[in-house]
Amino acid sequence: MAKASRDTRADYRAFSDITTRWMDNDVYAHVNNVVYYSWFDTVVNGHLIEQGVLDYAAGQTVGLVVETGCQYFAPISFPDRVRGGLRVARIGNSSVRYEVGLFRNGDDEAAAQGHFVHVYVDRATRRPVPLPDALRAVLQALMVE
Amino acid sequence: MAKASRDTRADYRAFSDITTRWMDNDVYAHVNNVVYYSWFDTVVNGHLIEQGVLDYAAGQTVGLVVETGCQYFAPISFPDRVRGGLRVARIGNSSVRYEVGLFRNGDDEAAAQGHFVHVYVDRATRRPVPLPDALRAVLQALMVE
Amino acid sequence: MAKASRDTRADYRAFSDITTRWMDNDVYAHVNNVVYYSWFDTVVNGHLIEQGVLDYAAGQTVGLVVETGCQYFAPISFPDRVRGGLRVARIGNSSVRYEVGLFRNGDDEAAAQGHFVHVYVDRATRRPVPLPDALRAVLQALMVE
Amino acid sequence: MAKASRDTRADYRAFSDITTRWMDNDVYAHVNNVVYYSWFDTVVNGHLIEQGVLDYAAGQTVGLVVETGCQYFAPISFPDRVRGGLRVARIGNSSVRYEVGLFRNGDDEAAAQGHFVHVYVDRATRRPVPLPDALRAVLQALMVE
Repeated sequence: MAKASRDTRADYRAFSDITTRWMDNDVYAHVNNVVYYSWFDTVVNGHLIEQGVLDYAAGQTVGLVVETGCQYFAPISFPDRVRGGLRVARIGNSSVRYEVGLFRNGDDEAAAQGHFVHVYVDRATRRPVPLPDALRAVLQALMVE
Repeated sequence: MAKASRDTRADYRAFSDITTRWMDNDVYAHVNNVVYYSWFDTVVNGHLIEQGVLDYAAGQTVGLVVETGCQYFAPISFPDRVRGGLRVARIGNSSVRYEVGLFRNGDDEAAAQGHFVHVYVDRATRRPVPLPDALRAVLQALMVE
Repeated sequence: MAKASRDTRADYRAFSDITTRWMDNDVYAHVNNVVYYSWFDTVVNGHLIEQGVLDYAAGQTVGLVVETGCQYFAPISFPDRVRGGLRVARIGNSSVRYEVGLFRNGDDEAAAQGHFVHVYVDRATRRPVPLPDALRAVLQALMVE
Repeated sequence: MAKASRDTRADYRAFSDITTRWMDNDVYAHVNNVVYYSWFDTVVNGHLIEQGVLDYAAGQTVGLVVETGCQYFAPISFPDRVRGGLRVARIGNSSVRYEVGLFRNGDDEAAAQGHFVHVYVDRATRRPVPLPDALRAVLQALMVE
């Protein structure tokens, strides 16, 4: 069960702030592993909304999540604050692989890092569609080599 | 079903910032009513931790929640930001009534407001105990007339 | 801070089963107070869907939550199972007051009980509308004196 | 982005029932991808508690989650019911790889499937410890080839 190497902030292209919540902590007094995925969602969709390329109420295309994964390196606990880093690792015809790093308080090394694959489909037919051009431009700005 | 009058920021004594999450939104694209209570918990316990009067891992007393309630005036949606206001309305021998107002983005009127009653018990016996002096001092600073 | 008397199963008219989840437990190893409200939502909307009077994707009317409240009498912990009881206490022109009792495993006394007020509005205009007849009939079957 | 082949119920060794909740549904009216992980946690820890090998309040060893992942094949929506299947794919000296399949209502093919790696550590020192014998026996009964 080989661990990926731990990312630092410099490995990401866009950032957002996340506040932890009392109920994020589980019986062991650390944020439960599930909650990290709610932050992935938030970092990805928050950036897309801010850039004007996600209109979840009326947009013609919808990003379906087909795969997610996370590696956990160090605990986070309420009332820690979290900084979420975002990058794009791969852009396909209809799909995108986002990668997210989560940084605890002022830490430079990620407490956890993971990925999130979206396939873009037509809202009505649920068939894959090519990534819209405006979205593709936002994704390219997040690409890392 | 009479509505309480809507509070403004001036009605509260301490504040904290809350970031919304993608999954807070429900099928109607507004933050689900349940999530507001996770913010109450966060505002109350966050303030107590910051003031040094809540040690949830090792403290001898535990605040049990015996009653909560909320009135909803206006929707909040991800990616809105929320400012939580906190005050204390009543201090008993073993219990406290906290009141929390939730303010959307820059709004001065509360989007929702509610209350939260803690009874302090001994961690082992679960019997009510008098509020510790240090906690009582923090609570008194939050009291409103 | 007077407590309501604790209900029993006989005080409710319709029931549904709820399974607890690992992450429902908080640092004190009991289900967090917030989670109970997610069960209220589930009991109310689950019954309405089952009875064919809630179509959240396409229905013309939407039930907005304007007030909720809960009293907590005894802890629930994962992996307990919960039985949710539902009744209606008041039916207005556009609004309904639901009451929900939560019963732990085989207990006859409620671990918690609360209420939940829906105002029905037009999906587009968000203005209150009279309760549809089919919904009103379902609600009347849940009324208690 | 190759998809794993979709499992069926016969690929799993132990099962538990999960009820969905109203707030599990996101703005697209499907259970949010995050919630699936709360079910993984529940299936794994629920089985360990039922088998008498997890005492989260007092046990000397704690299972830390170091890696999780999920592939999503078909949507689940409230009020669907879910059946969670559990198997063990690898048992190390201090670690275990659990695999979980999630089956919607009566479906034989998984709606989603994923994994969950626990490393067992001493509660106080947080250093890895060998899997306790009683736990190892329970895990071996869940092993698949």
